[in-house]
Amino acid sequence: MLPVTFLSDFGLDDEFVGVVHGVIAKLAPESRIIDLTHAIPAGGVRSGALALTRAIQYLPEGVVLAVVDPGVGTGRRAIACLTPWGHFVGPDNGLLSPAVAMSGGAVRVVSIENPEARIPSAGATFHGRDVFAPAAALLASGEAAIDDLGPPVDPEALVPMMLPIPDVGEGVVSGECWWVDRFGNCQTNIGPDDLTEAGMRPGRPVEVRIGATVREARWLGVYGEVEVGELLLHVDSAGLMSLAVRGGSAADELELADGVAVMLRRSR
Amino acid sequence: MLPVTFLSDFGLDDEFVGVVHGVIAKLAPESRIIDLTHAIPAGGVRSGALALTRAIQYLPEGVVLAVVDPGVGTGRRAIACLTPWGHFVGPDNGLLSPAVAMSGGAVRVVSIENPEARIPSAGATFHGRDVFAPAAALLASGEAAIDDLGPPVDPEALVPMMLPIPDVGEGVVSGECWWVDRFGNCQTNIGPDDLTEAGMRPGRPVEVRIGATVREARWLGVYGEVEVGELLLHVDSAGLMSLAVRGGSAADELELADGVAVMLRRSR
Amino acid sequence: MLPVTFLSDFGLDDEFVGVVHGVIAKLAPESRIIDLTHAIPAGGVRSGALALTRAIQYLPEGVVLAVVDPGVGTGRRAIACLTPWGHFVGPDNGLLSPAVAMSGGAVRVVSIENPEARIPSAGATFHGRDVFAPAAALLASGEAAIDDLGPPVDPEALVPMMLPIPDVGEGVVSGECWWVDRFGNCQTNIGPDDLTEAGMRPGRPVEVRIGATVREARWLGVYGEVEVGELLLHVDSAGLMSLAVRGGSAADELELADGVAVMLRRSR
Repeated sequence: MLPVTFLSDFGLDDEFVGVVHGVIAKLAPESRIIDLTHAIPAGGVRSGALALTRAIQYLPEGVVLAVVDPGVGTGRRAIACLTPWGHFVGPDNGLLSPAVAMSGGAVRVVSIENPEARIPSAGATFHGRDVFAPAAALLASGEAAIDDLGPPVDPEALVPMMLPIPDVGEGVVSGECWWVDRFGNCQTNIGPDDLTEAGMRPGRPVEVRIGATVREARWLGVYGEVEVGELLLHVDSAGLMSLAVRGGSAADELELADGVAVMLRRSR
Repeated sequence: MLPVTFLSDFGLDDEFVGVVHGVIAKLAPESRIIDLTHAIPAGGVRSGALALTRAIQYLPEGVVLAVVDPGVGTGRRAIACLTPWGHFVGPDNGLLSPAVAMSGGAVRVVSIENPEARIPSAGATFHGRDVFAPAAALLASGEAAIDDLGPPVDPEALVPMMLPIPDVGEGVVSGECWWVDRFGNCQTNIGPDDLTEAGMRPGRPVEVRIGATVREARWLGVYGEVEVGELLLHVDSAGLMSLAVRGGSAADELELADGVAVMLRRSR
Repeated sequence: MLPVTFLSDFGLDDEFVGVVHGVIAKLAPESRIIDLTHAIPAGGVRSGALALTRAIQYLPEGVVLAVVDPGVGTGRRAIACLTPWGHFVGPDNGLLSPAVAMSGGAVRVVSIENPEARIPSAGATFHGRDVFAPAAALLASGEAAIDDLGPPVDPEALVPMMLPIPDVGEGVVSGECWWVDRFGNCQTNIGPDDLTEAGMRPGRPVEVRIGATVREARWLGVYGEVEVGELLLHVDSAGLMSLAVRGGSAADELELADGVAVMLRRSR
């Protein structure tokens, strides 16, 4: 009767998400399903990992089911991890790793191989439907413990997610864009401590370099005022530095996208 | 254990909606969440207010959580309103006003300021997640009464939503387009009584003027027949006059959009 | 207290889906609602029927509510069908027929005409909200039996869905594309038995003709290896032959869409 939080790159144009809901509802009829998002770019393992990491502290304890799986059909493992927070189910490709680490780390990992925990298919296996959804549902309903799903895997042997760390120098921090949201706000991998360490201060202007583009932004403190159209840098609701334009799109103005390098330099 | 109906302009491309579901599920694990829509145009307070107004009579009594909030970060209040129907939670920018009025009016309003009813954030406040969702969940679960959320506000002091009233003359009614749906149907702010008052009758042709475009439509009565491609005017399922093209899109044909002026004139 | 699985062509841009959820939640507060998909192309009765057919075996027993209804406003019936699996509610236009047949066939059909089972509307009837949702909710909650909804209809008199059967010859099978998913995979109406009957074998190359385009694909067996960019033919997770490109889109490469003719010929 635990809730299942479900993230994928399935989109909502097909019935994939609905079929996974159906499988879970059959096996765990009392469990609530929360759709975190299904708009992760197709195959975007890093985007999915970051979305899950931003969200995990706000989710009810239970089961996370995450499927962004460009390596399906190759030898990658299907895994279930037990952490102090609860269970994580998905492919072993780094998607789960940061959220598992934030949740206290994996105390137990198994490879989902037990045929009794899978749904047989008339053709190719649809892993979301036939492997991951039943595993998540059995854990959520309490019908199975993690060890019922398959043989144990050494947690150290899981595929990690390599997330770049910003480079902090004197008066300059080099990082990258991690996420552009629907409002055009651009989250970076740079934290406020990185800027402070490099000698920058809230309220002061910062030079923003993205490729050949150079712009000035203001690091907005809590009580700062912003004008419409102004480019600003602020600590966003996930605790990271984000670029935003009041009443506009920083992504459009700066041609920013996931993975683009961002340099922040102390302005004179 | 009351249901929460949730409307926003968050879209489904990010995990915003899912995170709000997570917060509610943690605080009100027994409450059902109904996603009314999250595709309100970004910052479209009027569109959100109209969607909520069209829907309210079909929603189960409980809590409405509505977040379309272009003024976030300015001084606008976060409010909760108690009406004879139930609770409404959202920004004080007019978004809630028409639905609150339709629900019997606010008998109690508070400004959500109690720090115990909010979730602290590592950076900027994500009001949907940190302020509005906890308030809605606490009201839905019964863990809090409205007065636990913050100090009372005079209901008369709320920001109203100014909705234009059509102008009725002899043989002519001037109004505007309020909503274009996915099928290209265009709802106006004109009711059948306005047309009757101006001397028009069901079954008769009506001249439709939109900018420089003039077209003839038929006011379709209940038993009228429509040909494919025909432009027609009818009382839609919300009780307002809508322009539609059978098997086509009135919006495309008439270049209609939210807010465009529409004049209906008795045809000779 | 049965679950309701809901499929439509309403899209998620408007509040249509949310309002239907509201109506069901009011009448069947304990019933779970599963959104199968709402992205069926507007008026795409065949697409909706196929999506429902692919999904039905994975859905919890209860009520299917399906609304793809280009003939709304004409004389088409609104029906409820009882099968050994459960109830199906929707328009009588073929949408429900293949899934009803797969579920053991209709043992009872009624035309939803009882005014007590409908919601009155201020204007035009929004059938999803006013006719189909209440019927589905009453069946799900147990408040009504199928015969309470309206007069019986002969199951033989229902509108069928004509689904084309592939044409199998010596060394060649002619069929069509039934579904292009978000990843660009193209499902055909051809099964592996059709290819075997025509003399083709897994692991061997197959000539694919789509209009003037001729390409070679490999019929991938269970243990086959695929290179990035390779066009392949395989038995998909619904048991039908699908065209796919590893790491790419078969739909883009072959300009395939729903309904396009596909010829598969034994390659020398």
